[in-house]
Amino acid sequence: MRKSRKIPKATITRISRYCRQLEFLEFDGYRMVSSEKLAWSCQVNPAQVRKDLGYFGEFGVRGVGYDVRELMREIKKILAVNRDWNMGIVGVGNLGSAILNNQNFPDRGFFFVAAFDNDPQKIGRTVFPGLEIKPIEELATTVINSEVEIGVIATPASQAQRIAELFLEANVNAILNFSPTQIIVHDYCLVENIDFTIKLDVLTYKLKHELNHNGRVQG
Amino acid sequence: MRKSRKIPKATITRISRYCRQLEFLEFDGYRMVSSEKLAWSCQVNPAQVRKDLGYFGEFGVRGVGYDVRELMREIKKILAVNRDWNMGIVGVGNLGSAILNNQNFPDRGFFFVAAFDNDPQKIGRTVFPGLEIKPIEELATTVINSEVEIGVIATPASQAQRIAELFLEANVNAILNFSPTQIIVHDYCLVENIDFTIKLDVLTYKLKHELNHNGRVQG
Repeated sequence: MRKSRKIPKATITRISRYCRQLEFLEFDGYRMVSSEKLAWSCQVNPAQVRKDLGYFGEFGVRGVGYDVRELMREIKKILAVNRDWNMGIVGVGNLGSAILNNQNFPDRGFFFVAAFDNDPQKIGRTVFPGLEIKPIEELATTVINSEVEIGVIATPASQAQRIAELFLEANVNAILNFSPTQIIVHDYCLVENIDFTIKLDVLTYKLKHELNHNGRVQG
Repeated sequence: MRKSRKIPKATITRISRYCRQLEFLEFDGYRMVSSEKLAWSCQVNPAQVRKDLGYFGEFGVRGVGYDVRELMREIKKILAVNRDWNMGIVGVGNLGSAILNNQNFPDRGFFFVAAFDNDPQKIGRTVFPGLEIKPIEELATTVINSEVEIGVIATPASQAQRIAELFLEANVNAILNFSPTQIIVHDYCLVENIDFTIKLDVLTYKLKHELNHNGRVQG
């Protein structure tokens, strides 16, 4: 892989979106796709698609386009989603339950193998996909035994930092954080945040500044 | 406001995160904060904080820092979250229910005033916060009567495009899309996507390329 040190995160996010749209195109029976069509379906411009993919090598044939399946396979290799991943979740409230029941995770090779909560009413109950909710005190031993690779935090904000530290102590260095707070971690830990209200802030910013004043937000 | 045409979306996302952390700092009793401390709590560098805020004016005092409340108030004005917003949601499954019950929305001035589903078992039921689930056929009239400003899509991917078009026909030009697909809309419509699995792809990419090869992803 070329230039791994300079790849913008926005590129990684976009190639993940390209992969999603390639899945839909394959489902619709397409074997080849032009960068124009792929770009349109992802709401970016074709030059962006070519530039993003260009970080990783030469794909497609000029004037012909991309082989849908082959490009999908290459992107999955780049994203390291050409294999399955084990996940553990802490917090089995409304959001945690919705995450556990979300079919998009197993469809893409992300499998929950452990679930934790600190509510005595919930501990011991079985949740989809057949996991017994364990107390947080058992996190360290359970994530090792279940070979958890990605920790998912769906707790209130006040608990998130402590849970992140428990995951890290158990050598789970990648965290998907749904709680609406920033987790402070070392450089060698990876955290991706999914904060719904931050997306809403971006929307309302655009509603005010783009739709009223026609100023455009980049990217 | 200056330079509205050139503000990167990443800046908007970060100032929203600054606002979150300022809320925590205020809760902890801080009245002033240095750009170093604010930056650390948001896991960015201080120059980034100063650059991001610099798009919108002069904040803080050199050598002293920012007034926590004042900066929060200014950011909320920039993000247009210094007022309440009405939202309507389509899809009251596991995820939709979790979204409706998520206290972070009303805490930040985002209120659900309408909920829709196409499941006859669900239509007519009352969900938190006291909304009667309506059939999708009533979306157009309901969003007008309830003054919905932001549409939230929590349906399966196959329904998302159609629901987006219904929102747009009813003059709801801002959409928060939780379905794992790209919505194709005109330039004058605003869509923010929250696709959980794309965040996971970014994590697995980093797990493979950063932690193994020590190549860093920017941004």
